[in-house]
Amino acid sequence: MNTARIAYDPAESRLLEFRAHSHAFVDGADDPRNYLERCLAKISEREPAVKAFVCMNVEGARNAADAAAARYRAGRPLSPVDGMPFGVKDIFETADMPTQMNSPIYKGWHSHRDAAHVYALRRGGAVIVGKTTTTEFAIAGAPPTRNPFDSTRTAGGSSSGSCAAVGACMLPVASGNQGRGSIVRPAGYCAVYGFKPTQGALNSGGGHAFMPAHTVLGLVGGSLRDVWETAHWIAATVGGERGYPGLFGEATLAAAEKPRCVVKLQTAGWAVTDEESKTAFECFATELGRELPVLGRSEDPRIEELEQALVRIPEIMFPILGYEMRWPGLFYRELGNNLLNAEIVGHLLPYENMTLDQYREALRRRDELRTLFAKFRAVSAVCIAPVQPGPPPEGANVGDPVYGDVTSLIGSPAVVLPLLAVGGLPFGVQVMGQPHEDHRLFGWAHWIADWALHRRHSL
Amino acid sequence: MNTARIAYDPAESRLLEFRAHSHAFVDGADDPRNYLERCLAKISEREPAVKAFVCMNVEGARNAADAAAARYRAGRPLSPVDGMPFGVKDIFETADMPTQMNSPIYKGWHSHRDAAHVYALRRGGAVIVGKTTTTEFAIAGAPPTRNPFDSTRTAGGSSSGSCAAVGACMLPVASGNQGRGSIVRPAGYCAVYGFKPTQGALNSGGGHAFMPAHTVLGLVGGSLRDVWETAHWIAATVGGERGYPGLFGEATLAAAEKPRCVVKLQTAGWAVTDEESKTAFECFATELGRELPVLGRSEDPRIEELEQALVRIPEIMFPILGYEMRWPGLFYRELGNNLLNAEIVGHLLPYENMTLDQYREALRRRDELRTLFAKFRAVSAVCIAPVQPGPPPEGANVGDPVYGDVTSLIGSPAVVLPLLAVGGLPFGVQVMGQPHEDHRLFGWAHWIADWALHRRHSL
Repeated sequence: MNTARIAYDPAESRLLEFRAHSHAFVDGADDPRNYLERCLAKISEREPAVKAFVCMNVEGARNAADAAAARYRAGRPLSPVDGMPFGVKDIFETADMPTQMNSPIYKGWHSHRDAAHVYALRRGGAVIVGKTTTTEFAIAGAPPTRNPFDSTRTAGGSSSGSCAAVGACMLPVASGNQGRGSIVRPAGYCAVYGFKPTQGALNSGGGHAFMPAHTVLGLVGGSLRDVWETAHWIAATVGGERGYPGLFGEATLAAAEKPRCVVKLQTAGWAVTDEESKTAFECFATELGRELPVLGRSEDPRIEELEQALVRIPEIMFPILGYEMRWPGLFYRELGNNLLNAEIVGHLLPYENMTLDQYREALRRRDELRTLFAKFRAVSAVCIAPVQPGPPPEGANVGDPVYGDVTSLIGSPAVVLPLLAVGGLPFGVQVMGQPHEDHRLFGWAHWIADWALHRRHSL
Repeated sequence: MNTARIAYDPAESRLLEFRAHSHAFVDGADDPRNYLERCLAKISEREPAVKAFVCMNVEGARNAADAAAARYRAGRPLSPVDGMPFGVKDIFETADMPTQMNSPIYKGWHSHRDAAHVYALRRGGAVIVGKTTTTEFAIAGAPPTRNPFDSTRTAGGSSSGSCAAVGACMLPVASGNQGRGSIVRPAGYCAVYGFKPTQGALNSGGGHAFMPAHTVLGLVGGSLRDVWETAHWIAATVGGERGYPGLFGEATLAAAEKPRCVVKLQTAGWAVTDEESKTAFECFATELGRELPVLGRSEDPRIEELEQALVRIPEIMFPILGYEMRWPGLFYRELGNNLLNAEIVGHLLPYENMTLDQYREALRRRDELRTLFAKFRAVSAVCIAPVQPGPPPEGANVGDPVYGDVTSLIGSPAVVLPLLAVGGLPFGVQVMGQPHEDHRLFGWAHWIADWALHRRHSL
């Protein structure tokens, strides 16, 4: 079924869930090997058109699934992720597969080591199925991956393959990382649940050192529960980034919690968002406003103050990105032979002679913004915004990351909910919280997702 | 001259200097190729006994030195490090040589990439001569390296080769890194100038990700000037660690500045220091006390308060090390076949089931200690202590890192001065300052070194 186009309707969407199904492994009605085989069958069906994978280790996955099945049969699963098929963004090392980062410099490169989150998952019995596509070094260029709902369109970037694999029901959960919009945007484009955690919350060890320091490891999946419980397992096993306090919160998904109020945040993305998408988002916000206060800039001067500060993000963010990517960026550039993507070279050039003092000034301005955002909690602990300025673009254009910039620079968490469609294509809603409130943010997102589901059923 | 023993006398010691000599490249009296050839001749003479290098790229170094010579002839050196021979600790990647970390897991491993500081140095025209030995992953076990002054004794660890190469006058400057005492201790044992910078001050990118987050890239060299100016060049070219403000201070070595006062800090190391070494250090402190106030615990209750807090460092540090080394430590351990050093496995074991909450508690206690140390600046901005509890041990024992723990955990800078001898073997003095005051710390260390030199001459 290499369908070029599947009209996307959030009310009809069914993604793979793992944890909600794992009772069947416990009572013997199903087992992880069968679950994996269904994933593999879906991969056979959809992968030729979607192209979410760089490589796979089917034999290794089957062995891992059989071992998990035996543990469930013995009544002793290792963890909540035991037997769970998982895709690893090809920015992260895997002992059994090469890590190529979509870069000719790393073609065929093989570290023979598992990245921290891959180690944690295997330790919990998860089934590592394959490496998922990425833009070059998670920064620029396009992988061949196509949108699961329209093969003429992008799945987004940089966590292209992970989002497409989950959106096409090939896998329940996969990893991504984000320095700008690399998890939230493709999650929106592919209609999956996405999680960009608080800076430092998850250990990104074994990820390629090209991204800025605020880059985070995150996850995408078919349900909030699977995403949260997998993230928690990773943090409990290998911690957060070294020196950071790691992911806070319980092992289980937070119960749905109605937010006291929600702020509708119009950041730089709003100005470039098309009318149809704006309308879809505004309708959603208006409906939500019947349930709880949804505040916009006209309701509180502090909202306008924050929005005006956030509009200046590019002035702060681009120098930080440019400076922090100098090494290994300049080294790769000097290898010559166009081994480094011209777009990445273009990102580096304006900052090649930037001074340490200029970098410190950018960090200082970022700290100011972080302080302002922390104070904003007095207005609301929850903000909502689109994740994308329009439908997934056609062709090789991986889309505009602009809606990811706010939480990436602030270091705050975001959850993507696949709740809307625009023109029959997925359009995600981003729910954003304060740093370290990831667990509670899932509770609020949980409430919003449940409300949206019931609303659809009652229509 | 594979001398087994060279009685060490700080008054007679002559280390290689580069910057103090580079006027000769400018006026044509000498050139970098000749400088390199003298280093290579010294390597031929001393290396068979000292064993400071894992591998060398002599042809590459000669080419780089010739290119530097041409630039000086043209009156256009690239930087203060142009033409300077340099050794890279084999924890850091080099494009032209393998990076093996003294681990069987990485035997023959070749990343074909330059670590950040290596990139910065080559960009400035420095001459990368070879990779210097390290303990396994800079943590445990012993390289074959011998002390330049007594081949029956250790050069220390983990930056064994860099310190031995500089101590044996094979190189003017080389790199090290330190998570406990891996720069300062071998610097003391090998009678070289050592610099353990403020946490985050230098970009350690391309160093192997096994060390704790407070680990720093640092330098050892034959003069304070060479060490400072090289460190500054690295920071100016590739910055500090991403997200950190980097090394503060001028490009040139600070002029000698007499400290207002100095605190003689008795930390956990003092209890295990032998009597002869204690006496040598106390004599030094007493002599210094004729020039300026040297305060001990009886002079100010705040000194005793700090010392008592610092004695608890192991309770805080070991859980942090154990937790932060879990990945990739546990992954390597599970490779089996004793591929990971048993001593490293022993470090990991007690912390394998440590929780994220326990790690956060250790970070919290570290923050308390950092706050206490910052307040201590009101007592004195400069502290002195030994760097070693005794002479370099015999055999494979690389010595006790205890004197490095204070600044490693606090994240503050330390400079090692090769000023003393105990039993005809080197005994270093550690001068410690406040975070980000690295430049001024060099000025104070400069004054102490000059004073010690003049004192000797006047005896």
